[in-house]
Amino acid sequence: MTERSRVETGANSVVVDTSRSRFARLRPVAIERVQIADEFWAPGMAINRDITLPAMHRHLEETGRFDNFRWAAGMFAGGYRGKVFNDSDVYKWLEAACWSIASAGPDAGLTGMIDGAIETIAAAQRPDGYLGSYFSHDRANERWTNHDLHEMYCAGHLFQAAIAHHRATGSTRLLEVACRFADHIDATFGPPRDGKRLGADGHPEVEMALVELARETDEPRYRDLAQFFVDVRGHGYLGNAYGVYGTVYHQDHLPFRQMTEIAGHAVRAVYLNAGAADLVLENGERRLREALHALWANMTGRKLAASGGIGSRYDQEAFGPDYEIPNALAYNETCAAIGSAMWSWRMLLAEADARYADLIELQLCNAMRAGASLDGQSFFYENPLEDEGKHRRSAWFEVSCCPPNVARTLASLPGYLYTTSDDGGIWIHLYAAGTASIALADGRVVELRVATRYPWDDAIEIEVGGEGEFALRPRVPGWCDGGAAIDINGRRWEGRATPATYPDVRRVWRKGDLLRITLPMPVRRIETHPFVAGNAGRVAVLRGPLLYCAEAVDHPGVDLRTVHLPDDAPFTVERRPEMLDGVSVLTTTAHSIDPGERWQGRLYRPVGTGETSDQHEVSAIDLTMIPYYAWANREPGRMRVWLPRAPG
Amino acid sequence: MTERSRVETGANSVVVDTSRSRFARLRPVAIERVQIADEFWAPGMAINRDITLPAMHRHLEETGRFDNFRWAAGMFAGGYRGKVFNDSDVYKWLEAACWSIASAGPDAGLTGMIDGAIETIAAAQRPDGYLGSYFSHDRANERWTNHDLHEMYCAGHLFQAAIAHHRATGSTRLLEVACRFADHIDATFGPPRDGKRLGADGHPEVEMALVELARETDEPRYRDLAQFFVDVRGHGYLGNAYGVYGTVYHQDHLPFRQMTEIAGHAVRAVYLNAGAADLVLENGERRLREALHALWANMTGRKLAASGGIGSRYDQEAFGPDYEIPNALAYNETCAAIGSAMWSWRMLLAEADARYADLIELQLCNAMRAGASLDGQSFFYENPLEDEGKHRRSAWFEVSCCPPNVARTLASLPGYLYTTSDDGGIWIHLYAAGTASIALADGRVVELRVATRYPWDDAIEIEVGGEGEFALRPRVPGWCDGGAAIDINGRRWEGRATPATYPDVRRVWRKGDLLRITLPMPVRRIETHPFVAGNAGRVAVLRGPLLYCAEAVDHPGVDLRTVHLPDDAPFTVERRPEMLDGVSVLTTTAHSIDPGERWQGRLYRPVGTGETSDQHEVSAIDLTMIPYYAWANREPGRMRVWLPRAPG
Repeated sequence: MTERSRVETGANSVVVDTSRSRFARLRPVAIERVQIADEFWAPGMAINRDITLPAMHRHLEETGRFDNFRWAAGMFAGGYRGKVFNDSDVYKWLEAACWSIASAGPDAGLTGMIDGAIETIAAAQRPDGYLGSYFSHDRANERWTNHDLHEMYCAGHLFQAAIAHHRATGSTRLLEVACRFADHIDATFGPPRDGKRLGADGHPEVEMALVELARETDEPRYRDLAQFFVDVRGHGYLGNAYGVYGTVYHQDHLPFRQMTEIAGHAVRAVYLNAGAADLVLENGERRLREALHALWANMTGRKLAASGGIGSRYDQEAFGPDYEIPNALAYNETCAAIGSAMWSWRMLLAEADARYADLIELQLCNAMRAGASLDGQSFFYENPLEDEGKHRRSAWFEVSCCPPNVARTLASLPGYLYTTSDDGGIWIHLYAAGTASIALADGRVVELRVATRYPWDDAIEIEVGGEGEFALRPRVPGWCDGGAAIDINGRRWEGRATPATYPDVRRVWRKGDLLRITLPMPVRRIETHPFVAGNAGRVAVLRGPLLYCAEAVDHPGVDLRTVHLPDDAPFTVERRPEMLDGVSVLTTTAHSIDPGERWQGRLYRPVGTGETSDQHEVSAIDLTMIPYYAWANREPGRMRVWLPRAPG
Repeated sequence: MTERSRVETGANSVVVDTSRSRFARLRPVAIERVQIADEFWAPGMAINRDITLPAMHRHLEETGRFDNFRWAAGMFAGGYRGKVFNDSDVYKWLEAACWSIASAGPDAGLTGMIDGAIETIAAAQRPDGYLGSYFSHDRANERWTNHDLHEMYCAGHLFQAAIAHHRATGSTRLLEVACRFADHIDATFGPPRDGKRLGADGHPEVEMALVELARETDEPRYRDLAQFFVDVRGHGYLGNAYGVYGTVYHQDHLPFRQMTEIAGHAVRAVYLNAGAADLVLENGERRLREALHALWANMTGRKLAASGGIGSRYDQEAFGPDYEIPNALAYNETCAAIGSAMWSWRMLLAEADARYADLIELQLCNAMRAGASLDGQSFFYENPLEDEGKHRRSAWFEVSCCPPNVARTLASLPGYLYTTSDDGGIWIHLYAAGTASIALADGRVVELRVATRYPWDDAIEIEVGGEGEFALRPRVPGWCDGGAAIDINGRRWEGRATPATYPDVRRVWRKGDLLRITLPMPVRRIETHPFVAGNAGRVAVLRGPLLYCAEAVDHPGVDLRTVHLPDDAPFTVERRPEMLDGVSVLTTTAHSIDPGERWQGRLYRPVGTGETSDQHEVSAIDLTMIPYYAWANREPGRMRVWLPRAPG
């Protein structure tokens, strides 16, 4: 099925449907309308569709995750296997598969798997609408007894899968299942004055899913229920099996509108914030928006790794305190970066502020992409920025939230490139070669044909296939220090194209007009706020949106721990099409400084010992840095993002 | 009961009995023979005996740990509660209580608790000798099915408790229980040629306990079984419930004699090493000793926090790779530092090398002591060297290994001060005011009367109550850079007293001779090997064996994150008897450097931005540093051990 025919079927695979959201500044463009045909994303998306999703389907089958539904449906006698939240992996896989067929067209194999999965899920639904395979048979009486058992977390992922399926295929088969479960939850939880229970899920997720379900079904009850689940937190109503209430881990420590510091379990936090942002898109509530601003500012200003990774702590998979940004010991769960991008996407839809898109790009290109191997067959749960060669990806996990989260993000990526606004604007958030067919508010359809080697190259050429007045608003990333250069048909555009803005390139366009955006991307060295002790005296290297790192495999005979980067060492950008599925590496001459002689096996020494005449221990080495997202795809060895500056 | 009368009862409470160990250089001195009456340890030991141990007994009762034994014995119907290894907490408490009565004399309350606990434990033993309350009734068939269930770990603690009880009281009541269980294990595990099973416990502990049981009972089978449990590891015989074999977590990744890097779960590692060191004491095996040397060198040279904390990682409670020494994110489990001291004590007994005693002192004074609050009522499991005020001690834990481990260590402390050697030497390892009554190899008894305010003061005066030729060998700590000054009866001793040695002060002593040892303890600043990124540009401050830290409570109005220590800032040592149960604080003038202005809310910035004209943001502040062990005993706030050096 071609792109055109899918559009004609009425499929409308938007990821977050703000087309009628009252307080959205930006309107979505469906996945079907955008083809990514670039070097950076398209190969990975194809691998995701052709290799990762079928392989995940096997994992889901082999680990009993489908059998759990069959057991709940009375079709399998083996009992429940695995973690209590394992249904959610099936739902996330399903969502990924639906976005994937929206993007690439129905694939016979994938469609068959989708249909089979949906029938298995539907069979497990109880007559009262409840759906959760763990809580079947003898355990049915444990429903809603402990907010830590992820019942609504799983429900939220069901809803998102059902919405994706409906948008991609037009079928209401799974959407009806989702609505029956949503109705069950709505009948159970809510204000006591309505005869319902106070409470919410210990793991947020259902909030954003309910708002989306309201958008998809025009059922305002679902939005109101999401609002209830945001509002009910922080008042002492959530308690887990141990009767512990008000934990920051569960995002229950404060009423949402009083939160100013992002804290607790990182995925829980950003999922909740995404749901709250969805509410802001619908209701425009000022206090909710202010809390979201404070949380976002705290996260980006004090708790964000250079890769976009968030949630520094292994302990409770949590955000640490301000300025806790470890490298080797960073947790930086793949799901947390993805959840953060989902949150920022909703903020961007509400406010059209390029800073949100900057973070989304940082997190998708680095933190999220590092979560998967280049061959699409193994995944990181934790994403350190420094390693000694032991941290390697796994094909699957006992808690396997991350792999299908990467899969659904890659599959839905076309939906994140463009949006429109009611004033006749087309906003370009992420740059990728390909085409798009974008409907303006007045019904005109604008075709864009994008030619670029971004993020490897700084030039983006957009051939505009549309007539009349409208505005193209290409993002100038915040990292683009001097601003962008914009040319139209070879002539310099005179407007402002400053960093972290969307220049308003409004004119009467003619078919075939050529917009050229140049985003200068010299190699950048950054340093970290001095409160981050582990980065003291160290720099990281970036080019464009990509963070770079050094891997041992490129430096035979060199101990990466000894490598120091002189401030004035000039980097050369070298394209290596054969390496790591095609990357630009950065090369320079650095210093290897062996401390061995001076330290004589000691770990500590009195200050001031042996700090002179070290020059003889310095040797020049060829340093090759690769994009961080591509690390750990070759033979194991040390990896470093932050390199000490060579002594002046 | 006075000290003398306890000696007369035949009690012989040595912690590790190397009195007949063929390859021991040092022989133990029983707890009863040593009275600690100093400012530093004695108050905490009294609190441990009078407050902590009774409180722990209540916790053991309230959390069902005694009931578990009663349930196993058929005396309680409520079923098993808590973690599978909860028996071990009872055993460690019991060991602590026995050492405590050895040290302080039988206390009616404590003795009653001990006797009650022993009867409860004994009642739970099965006719075949098996003892493990979890594996009772229906779960009896789960015995020895999964090495991860801590059956022998608990057994080891039972043996240690039984040995302590026998040594302190002369009663064989619990020792007989222990031997029956040891016989059961010995009949079950061993070489297949003897018709036994290959295997070992996933959590080492039983190894050192079995060697000690062999020493206590003259039963070589127990020592041979310990040898078997060391030798069997690393050959693929251990597998947990998931069928995973050969994990570093369980110390099963390599045959012991091939280990060169200390790795995996820290407590497992150091407990196993303690057991292997016990074997070396008995059999002198060269390869085992070499492996222990390599592991000890690796730990102390690359994996040791300045506090003596070990096991850097929350993830698996494990050692990280070389040079992974975090501060805020350090795990540094209290039990790991204690286990390390136990291991080093056995190395010291074998080799009489002062470096082992240096580490023991470092870990007992800092890492272990920080594990308990000054009031003896709450405990740390993890021991970071930096905190933002959230990390506080708890009275008890669901996994509560650390509190009774601190208790048994404090209770047995008198046993770690002195040893003898067959050449007529008395070795002084740790300095504390008090008395000792030490039997030389030839049967002469030497009374020592020690007057000192160590570690607050640098002078130790020892009045020797003994006649004839023998050697006093007082340790000169490694930190004592310039060596010690030693005077006898007011005249300088002419021998060498270099750091990390035991000067051989051999002479014909006369009753009343006065040995004076001066261990100069200027305030020391240390820096860390440059491979430890988080300490780059930072210094820690020590005096004598004590590590110091800064706490927010002593610095109102100052953000500790801004504090920089000038290299030339002179410290003043101030005795504060009223503060933190009596400490010497270190005071100086430091700099507060507020980065706020230059960073404008940013977390990262291009290198080279805004590095000039910062002087106006520097203000002088009064810095007060307290001993690290005493942190988190007042109102919560930031804590820092490693302080950035003030810019030159």
